[in-house]
Amino acid sequence: MPTSYSISGFPEWSPEQRIVEKRVLEKIEDSFRLYGFINIETCGVESYESLMKKGDGKEIYRLAKAGSGEENLGLHFDLTLPLARYVLERRGELVFPFRRFQIQKVWRGERPQGGRYREFYQADIDIVSQGELPKHFEYEVPLAMCHTLKSLSPLGLGNFTMHINNRKLSEGFYRALGIKDVEETLRRIDKLDKLGVQKTRQILEEVAGERGAEACLDLAQIKETDPRRLGERLKDLCKKWNVEGPSEETDLMWEGAKDAEAVLSSLVRSGFEGACIDCAIARGLDYYTGCVYETFLQEAPSLGSICSGGRYENLISTPKQKYPGVGMSIGVSRLLSHLFSKARADRVSPAVALVTVWSEEEREKSDEVARILRERGIACEVSPSASKLGAQIKRADRLSIPYVWFVSDEGEEVKDIRTGDQKKADPAFWEPDPKYAADIIVRE
Amino acid sequence: MPTSYSISGFPEWSPEQRIVEKRVLEKIEDSFRLYGFINIETCGVESYESLMKKGDGKEIYRLAKAGSGEENLGLHFDLTLPLARYVLERRGELVFPFRRFQIQKVWRGERPQGGRYREFYQADIDIVSQGELPKHFEYEVPLAMCHTLKSLSPLGLGNFTMHINNRKLSEGFYRALGIKDVEETLRRIDKLDKLGVQKTRQILEEVAGERGAEACLDLAQIKETDPRRLGERLKDLCKKWNVEGPSEETDLMWEGAKDAEAVLSSLVRSGFEGACIDCAIARGLDYYTGCVYETFLQEAPSLGSICSGGRYENLISTPKQKYPGVGMSIGVSRLLSHLFSKARADRVSPAVALVTVWSEEEREKSDEVARILRERGIACEVSPSASKLGAQIKRADRLSIPYVWFVSDEGEEVKDIRTGDQKKADPAFWEPDPKYAADIIVRE
Repeated sequence: MPTSYSISGFPEWSPEQRIVEKRVLEKIEDSFRLYGFINIETCGVESYESLMKKGDGKEIYRLAKAGSGEENLGLHFDLTLPLARYVLERRGELVFPFRRFQIQKVWRGERPQGGRYREFYQADIDIVSQGELPKHFEYEVPLAMCHTLKSLSPLGLGNFTMHINNRKLSEGFYRALGIKDVEETLRRIDKLDKLGVQKTRQILEEVAGERGAEACLDLAQIKETDPRRLGERLKDLCKKWNVEGPSEETDLMWEGAKDAEAVLSSLVRSGFEGACIDCAIARGLDYYTGCVYETFLQEAPSLGSICSGGRYENLISTPKQKYPGVGMSIGVSRLLSHLFSKARADRVSPAVALVTVWSEEEREKSDEVARILRERGIACEVSPSASKLGAQIKRADRLSIPYVWFVSDEGEEVKDIRTGDQKKADPAFWEPDPKYAADIIVRE
Repeated sequence: MPTSYSISGFPEWSPEQRIVEKRVLEKIEDSFRLYGFINIETCGVESYESLMKKGDGKEIYRLAKAGSGEENLGLHFDLTLPLARYVLERRGELVFPFRRFQIQKVWRGERPQGGRYREFYQADIDIVSQGELPKHFEYEVPLAMCHTLKSLSPLGLGNFTMHINNRKLSEGFYRALGIKDVEETLRRIDKLDKLGVQKTRQILEEVAGERGAEACLDLAQIKETDPRRLGERLKDLCKKWNVEGPSEETDLMWEGAKDAEAVLSSLVRSGFEGACIDCAIARGLDYYTGCVYETFLQEAPSLGSICSGGRYENLISTPKQKYPGVGMSIGVSRLLSHLFSKARADRVSPAVALVTVWSEEEREKSDEVARILRERGIACEVSPSASKLGAQIKRADRLSIPYVWFVSDEGEEVKDIRTGDQKKADPAFWEPDPKYAADIIVRE
């Protein structure tokens, strides 16, 4: 587990950790492709105004140049805003609904404490439509994410729980209670996890009144793994707070409830356990308009949500056309900080064999063996110096290169330094044991 | 070929172009691994002072935050400076010689003209030693790069020429001529390509005098594909300018010549044609101390060097220890701007099949087919809407998804929309034609 970096908040991994990171990124990507998501990469910067409009101004890194001062550019803090720009710029050429994935670093100038990173990888999928976005995408995206997270279990990622809520459900209930500032209420309920009930009640009362605060907290208590039971619990809640309707507000609530149920049903049907409807999930961002999602590791809930997102109706739009979407994002670096305690690289060097050098005069012979092996796709390195064989083998051992190749006029030999097994070998035919293809070991 | 981006100088590719970029990056990475290079990734920023010390101040992007102003951080402009820091920070844990590769974006605030990018990918390999760096690494690194560039020929990269020179050769000759400011002379000779002989002679005369300028230009004329002929040509040159030695200066020149010859011999021995010794190669950076390299595409010399580097003796050091290295860097984005005219993606979506939907009520059936296909590793998407079959097929066609799956109670069928071939199929057993695995087409 890395505890310090030379540049505060900007994590950097050892070569061994990088192998784990690389594998995690590859697994995520493979899974995204399986669901037909198309890869794009956007540049690292956006116009400073657009960043300031959507993000937390204090956290945005702006670019400046010696001589010419501040530029109208800043580093992107997520991959949703870049997607919005990309879609609008290329709306004439993209095929809608546009299913895209994007795995890139993002930057946030947060105070680097409590494991918060200032630079980290996000892995996003979104489906963006032109005009209407069918509701079934609200379960397709979390379904793809459940599959993706599950594909990481061979790397040590344990069970997770995906929590589903719907903005319409919360908003309908809040409005039925007579709460005016729904957005602010959501923002405060979002803090329940961090602040606890007592403190949250206090800040809720400021916007929702005493009765409103209590009712909001009551709604936030609803957590259901059985989609069929949500309706009953909401009915009881409405009865208790005397907002049974029917009214425009309760209609909105029931629409949201139905959508959340559909997502949960679909996940259950696909065999993903550990999904639930959780009416406490609010999400900080104000652009969500339908289902919202957060995901927690069962053995490390304190990490916070490792995969979140939701549906947005109006984030991407022109005066004439709207492009509603639904997307989720994995916080890869946060997830890694957990995985590093589980998975470690078995091999540091990609080389399978170290070709020894008998003397510097005969280095050409070793180079030739390496050339033949590489031509056959076998990764190797030639010993850096014609030192004593023991020292050459020690390098292979320290780099966890499993084989050492001995070049000699009497015939080549190759030794498995883990088993001690030594055999005659011809570089044109020799194959390493397939067991050395696996380069990551997971602690049980 | 992309001609404009919304953010000037920051290129962004279409989904189709991104497929080509991704493939290029993968090929490069595979080749680096074959040579036993270990992957690391460094963060995107460095301390602003260290960037200003080594780079062109006008081009460095500094970070600033609203409220707290300019930070002591800037975006890295290459991957060598980050490597130097990484090696020094981890010198206690790394195994030396440290063979590392690194493929990341870098940023340079150049004026975005003439195809210059402000954000682009570099792919670097370096071998860094502790104490002494054996000379054979000066050919291992260009050898690995020749192999890497050659591995891109299936993507349309044509023949290239690697030009080799050695700083000691130039410096020895310059000093023998009595030139004092060797660094400045090198910097000016480096401009020969851009400025032409006339103008270069003029700026050379300011530092090297009339005779010196003429002799420098004479040296720069030497281009040799046969390593055995270099000695003779240098001898003639020294005789012409009356600096035959032997002296400390000519010794240095001959040492450099021997090293450059050894690199060329090794490349020739390994079957790479199109390498040459080119005494005009100087490289702008002042930290090089031995062999230097530049690489040009034969069909697009105007692109400039696509792969450059050299040996550096003192770039990485502590007061007690030096870490000499040799490295080269591929300018991937520049290379891509050329490849886009050669290679194009045959497939836009990674999905091999589009599962159609008969009616929204029956979407679950289509979801189930998709689930089974994905479980078997077959990428697919479910039709976004239960529109007319023609419209569903049109989506597959526009996304170049080769198969359309028809879900029906009477039995499933799958149609290859390129051949028109339609067959009964079971999602638990069906396999797509392997020909659809290739997703990039190269123009002949």
